[in-house]
Amino acid sequence: MRYPEIRRRNTRSVKVGGQTIGSGSPVSVQSMTNTPTSDVAATVEQVNRLAEAGAQFVRVAVPTEADTAGLSDIVKASSVPIIADVHFNFRRAVEAIAAGVAKIRLNPGNIADRGQVKQVIRAAADSGVAIRVGVNEGSVVDRADSDRRAADLSRPMDELMAERLAEYLDVFEECDFQNIVLSAKSHDAVTTIAVNRRIAEQWDYPLHIGVTHAGTAQSGAIRSAAALGALLAEGIGDTIRISYAGDPEAEVVAGLELLWSLRLRDRDRVELIACPTCGRAMIDVAPIAEQVRSALADIRKPMTVAVMGCVVNGPGEADHADVAICAGKGKAVLYRHGKKLRTVPAEHIVEAVVAEARALAEKAS
Amino acid sequence: MRYPEIRRRNTRSVKVGGQTIGSGSPVSVQSMTNTPTSDVAATVEQVNRLAEAGAQFVRVAVPTEADTAGLSDIVKASSVPIIADVHFNFRRAVEAIAAGVAKIRLNPGNIADRGQVKQVIRAAADSGVAIRVGVNEGSVVDRADSDRRAADLSRPMDELMAERLAEYLDVFEECDFQNIVLSAKSHDAVTTIAVNRRIAEQWDYPLHIGVTHAGTAQSGAIRSAAALGALLAEGIGDTIRISYAGDPEAEVVAGLELLWSLRLRDRDRVELIACPTCGRAMIDVAPIAEQVRSALADIRKPMTVAVMGCVVNGPGEADHADVAICAGKGKAVLYRHGKKLRTVPAEHIVEAVVAEARALAEKAS
Repeated sequence: MRYPEIRRRNTRSVKVGGQTIGSGSPVSVQSMTNTPTSDVAATVEQVNRLAEAGAQFVRVAVPTEADTAGLSDIVKASSVPIIADVHFNFRRAVEAIAAGVAKIRLNPGNIADRGQVKQVIRAAADSGVAIRVGVNEGSVVDRADSDRRAADLSRPMDELMAERLAEYLDVFEECDFQNIVLSAKSHDAVTTIAVNRRIAEQWDYPLHIGVTHAGTAQSGAIRSAAALGALLAEGIGDTIRISYAGDPEAEVVAGLELLWSLRLRDRDRVELIACPTCGRAMIDVAPIAEQVRSALADIRKPMTVAVMGCVVNGPGEADHADVAICAGKGKAVLYRHGKKLRTVPAEHIVEAVVAEARALAEKAS
Repeated sequence: MRYPEIRRRNTRSVKVGGQTIGSGSPVSVQSMTNTPTSDVAATVEQVNRLAEAGAQFVRVAVPTEADTAGLSDIVKASSVPIIADVHFNFRRAVEAIAAGVAKIRLNPGNIADRGQVKQVIRAAADSGVAIRVGVNEGSVVDRADSDRRAADLSRPMDELMAERLAEYLDVFEECDFQNIVLSAKSHDAVTTIAVNRRIAEQWDYPLHIGVTHAGTAQSGAIRSAAALGALLAEGIGDTIRISYAGDPEAEVVAGLELLWSLRLRDRDRVELIACPTCGRAMIDVAPIAEQVRSALADIRKPMTVAVMGCVVNGPGEADHADVAICAGKGKAVLYRHGKKLRTVPAEHIVEAVVAEARALAEKAS
């Protein structure tokens, strides 16, 4: 079977710690800690938990000097490159760079003094640190307010955000600094798509894509997957964060699911295919699929396992799954690589599928 | 504020019961029952529950004559148009049309006899019933097997599926039947995107879009939102089903969330904006956001409520939320339409936000 592939847009390569962001590398997943960064032990623990879940980079907030004070210890103890999230005070950026972070995130709209931004850029250049230059919908609105340029807001938000980003980039170009990742975040999915399409046309820097303030876990995952899925399907996006209010580990898993589903990263875990609920199902698919998924969650190999409730779509799916089960009345047929292996009584479906998948994983290693 | 809009592709209009599918109407959400359709009471109960959750159409499986036997009672007792899902036997389609369904779903690849397909088309034409003509990835594979045309499979799946659909449509054109919705489903998100782009270029029938066998709730929602989000953002898709193994009501809610997040349907409920977790948050955003969301779930008015953990992004978001709270240390500021109302002690955030939102909802009605 040959499936179509997403063609990624060509970008520069940006080194971030030992890794690279840009079209030459697979799209990466980021998350952000929600511990106070000044609590070094808690932050390191969470960074490494997020890395274990699959995050390639972890971002930490550094609102105060107490936060940057512990950064060098966090950087040393972390298994992935650390990104410092800088807001109003350029000094936090300079301190974070001195502490050894791999990248900083800067919204130059929050730092009024151009000379201060230049100090940050020079420090980053001297240390080989990358900078994400980010524009938010909020910055555009604030600026329009402070400039009393209310007329601006009659133009579409994506245009305004791209223009603001161009203004931000002036000073970086003046300093001949190109170790840059761009981002433009809105809470609105359509705006996120539109502004990133603009940016992707205008610059060849890699893009960090995400939706801000996406809401609670359920709606946040859907809104983020819709916006990021649209962009990634067009080849736009080099590093992503799915963000919503909740556990950052869940954000990482959601981000990986998104990249796996678009085949933008190699899946190193079991992919569970299950048929949707319908009146034809001979078994209760959902709990069986969930039991199988959870029993195989520790496998770090790519593998497709299908749990199918009836014989209508089952055999077709079984053809290209590594392991599949198709339920009939009171029993089910177990397949490996599309070949029927044997019939299994309904009550032994989970153990049969799990045993077969484990045997296959063993063989592959 | 002006946000960019999705421009939908122009399609024909197809009448389905009292409603219309196509570019002239908002994108609709479907789901499918998982009760045995022969159990009329259980099926009616579930259909109406799905309609209450927001489904515009509900599909039921009719594998046996016992299933079509109860259909006319189901159609009469249902608050939304019923679609019959027909598989191997054309007689089920004819019986379903006689029972008064508004639309049938047919995969002509499963009905070998062209004369039988024509009987279905004539019955549908006589009764003003629409037909969804669907091709699945599985059908392409089965056909390649039975035809021993294995060479076919060296070509990309999206090409093969679109070609198969063109073959299916021959007989409909021969019968001059145009009351058609098209669909092409794969479990693969990239194939789903690619094949629907092809179909959207080739025909002007409305499209039903969805990903099959998308897995369990979490991965299924993300895979579906990524593929459907990409298509919808390009203006492709007139009716959707998010399908995964689990509760069909959750599918409906996920589908609505997707359409709301792309502003393809008017939201008639509270949209909860919450900031992502980070070290700056002065409150535990997630549980507060979840409490607010659940307390306002019964409101059937469009309204934006933002729960923001700190003053960095908070005031910007508050500007364009109907009601917002931005947390500081031990207290929070309550906003209405971007205007500060008052300071609220941290422990009273939920009740203050809920009261303000309810007051606004009252006023709007």
